[in-house]
Amino acid sequence: MGERTNILQKNIHQSITANRKDGIHLLKRLVQIASTQGKEADAQRIILETLFDMGLDVDLWEPNGEELQASPYFASSRYDFSGSPNVVGVLKGTGGGRSIILNGHIDVVPAGDRNQWEEDPFSGIVKNGKMYGRGVTDMKGGNVSMLVALKTLQTLNIRLKGDVIFESVIEEESGGSGTLAAILRGYQADAALIPEPTNMKIFPKQQGSMWFRIHVKGRSAHGGTRYEGVSAIDKSLIVIKHIKELEDQRNKRITDPLYAKIPIPIPINIGKIEGGEWPSSVPDFVILEGRMGVSPDEQMEDARLEIETWIEGLGEVEPWFNVHPASIEWYGGRWLPGSIDSDHELLSLLSENYRFVLNEEAIIEASPWGTDGGLLTQVGNIPSIVFGPGVTDQAHFPNEYIELDRVFEAAEIIVLTLIDWCGVEY
Amino acid sequence: MGERTNILQKNIHQSITANRKDGIHLLKRLVQIASTQGKEADAQRIILETLFDMGLDVDLWEPNGEELQASPYFASSRYDFSGSPNVVGVLKGTGGGRSIILNGHIDVVPAGDRNQWEEDPFSGIVKNGKMYGRGVTDMKGGNVSMLVALKTLQTLNIRLKGDVIFESVIEEESGGSGTLAAILRGYQADAALIPEPTNMKIFPKQQGSMWFRIHVKGRSAHGGTRYEGVSAIDKSLIVIKHIKELEDQRNKRITDPLYAKIPIPIPINIGKIEGGEWPSSVPDFVILEGRMGVSPDEQMEDARLEIETWIEGLGEVEPWFNVHPASIEWYGGRWLPGSIDSDHELLSLLSENYRFVLNEEAIIEASPWGTDGGLLTQVGNIPSIVFGPGVTDQAHFPNEYIELDRVFEAAEIIVLTLIDWCGVEY
Repeated sequence: MGERTNILQKNIHQSITANRKDGIHLLKRLVQIASTQGKEADAQRIILETLFDMGLDVDLWEPNGEELQASPYFASSRYDFSGSPNVVGVLKGTGGGRSIILNGHIDVVPAGDRNQWEEDPFSGIVKNGKMYGRGVTDMKGGNVSMLVALKTLQTLNIRLKGDVIFESVIEEESGGSGTLAAILRGYQADAALIPEPTNMKIFPKQQGSMWFRIHVKGRSAHGGTRYEGVSAIDKSLIVIKHIKELEDQRNKRITDPLYAKIPIPIPINIGKIEGGEWPSSVPDFVILEGRMGVSPDEQMEDARLEIETWIEGLGEVEPWFNVHPASIEWYGGRWLPGSIDSDHELLSLLSENYRFVLNEEAIIEASPWGTDGGLLTQVGNIPSIVFGPGVTDQAHFPNEYIELDRVFEAAEIIVLTLIDWCGVEY
Repeated sequence: MGERTNILQKNIHQSITANRKDGIHLLKRLVQIASTQGKEADAQRIILETLFDMGLDVDLWEPNGEELQASPYFASSRYDFSGSPNVVGVLKGTGGGRSIILNGHIDVVPAGDRNQWEEDPFSGIVKNGKMYGRGVTDMKGGNVSMLVALKTLQTLNIRLKGDVIFESVIEEESGGSGTLAAILRGYQADAALIPEPTNMKIFPKQQGSMWFRIHVKGRSAHGGTRYEGVSAIDKSLIVIKHIKELEDQRNKRITDPLYAKIPIPIPINIGKIEGGEWPSSVPDFVILEGRMGVSPDEQMEDARLEIETWIEGLGEVEPWFNVHPASIEWYGGRWLPGSIDSDHELLSLLSENYRFVLNEEAIIEASPWGTDGGLLTQVGNIPSIVFGPGVTDQAHFPNEYIELDRVFEAAEIIVLTLIDWCGVEY
């Protein structure tokens, strides 16, 4: 650091400021495309052109569903990725430096109920320094931070020693098949950075999660003689209470100081309940659907086994379950936990550059949700950090926005970190 | 009773036995018509022809939706009854006797999941003395008992003093609009008998019931930070427990000896639960649907007010409800309770004839469900008794059946009771 970085940072800051208008224009164009699952192609085309214009090596391909299915980490609602390409751009280093993957997803969740939006969800309208639209915070804003960072390196003719691999992936919102496909295609690096919406916090650990469905049985009867039946709703209350106890036990085990301020580090959330068919019948089934948080320090398989065994133990709480066991199945979303060593150099470099640019200490926490960082860490063996300009509690919500200043602050921190991590050829 | 009845009963028994084949044939024809809501016409046509062939005055009409809607007792999912006629046949008495309504519904509930039926639900197949099919027990078997009773009177040339009004009504399974229409058309009598499936028990009192829907609110959040939200599922557990306490209180007040053997005389059944939309979101709503039993000795309005006030009191149990009150609405089914005085002569005549025909004491209980007897009692002011040959726990179930012997035993008891109640012109 010191003198060199002061001058360099001034140049970088000036260059980013000079290119701010272009960055906002790019973000707006991306937000105006509703790149929901299956409809990512038009947005990827813009990414491709941007990378091409910067002179990067580009690679665009449609992930191979058959190949993906063969992986135990595959989790998607579809097998055919026609029309849903991944895009990768490689900024080749001069050699001898450490490489890095900059990973961002191009897919966005659906806009949901349009009536809850004040403006068209794909307007990209700017008001009071905020841009609005589905996906602007999660995570097209973060993607633009990375692209602005790369552009700045090119503008200032800064030549890195290590490779920078920029990945614009599909399917993060639906199980991570885009990043999985990039790993299977052979993209490797010494570390990875993912600018998901962290409110500019740095997440060296990300919670994993998986969805489950629990079936609870009852015995039907007419509501007027409900004592002749067994209510699956009543029994499901026991199941819910039982799961709360497991959540309690699991969270008591968490000692990582990164979780110190988090009330429930790895929650088990019951998100959906459905049972019975008729008001005047005793309900003979209930289905519970939920999300189990998985600690960065545990294996998915261990977490799965723990709750499965716990559900088997319901018979000790209530004899009904000995004869009519509740069953648990795994379906839908699954996000691997991710983590990087607390003394990893990328973490300290990122924190230092944060302080350097923003004159305050970075907040370092464990994230309460999973990202593609889990796949990069566990499948790709690439230590990953999540840090981005988006507003955490705006993700997936109506009137999603991002504060544009954060996009360019993040870009500045990223450029400096790339220089420190990959090294510079003078 | 005594000598006269012994000879008479022998003749009646012989006549019923001689006509057994015809009765079974009639029941089979009725069962083979899937007379679900809106599709009652073909079955009513058979009833019409049967009444006509016996020489009764017949009245067939489609209930007037507009007129019905004007009644506070109207409860149906439809307003148009085109193609869904009621049929009434009147066996005029010679004068000076007490009149009686014999009321049975022709509508049946849907067959449900065909895979759970061993035979076609509308086969009317007979195996080991049982006829199978949707509606055979609830309550076409009971209707045939009444028709066999009337036929027997005709065959034996027994001329009653009082009128017998046979009503074949629509819509019992959907709120009673058929019987309501018959009352509004002016059909009146000194008492009524309804052969719903009581397992040959005599029900001088019938529980009323009404359906409710309770809305419980929560506050959404990401499942990974579930502590930032408020789970409507968790809150609904409190609501369910609260309702159980009300059920307890209400049942402690029941002292009627007819309920002595019934564990919960007037249950409040939660039949359906639905809440949340996404496994990894904190659910912000739950909807509970249920059925509230109403005692024969209370007014519907009082029961309604009691639970409404009780739900308002949730804030004392859990402060959340003060700010986000749970709300209750009334929808769908509503069945008025019905009752007849315990010293009513129809009750004693029916019990005596039961003993006379079957050589055992009749079981007299309060029914755990409502019938059209509630409308006849409360709107028509016609004291009503429910007694019939069907198998209570087969109603609405797959592989519904009736034991054919019961159909003819009930017919015999009904003939003798009509003779005693209406009087005979010799």
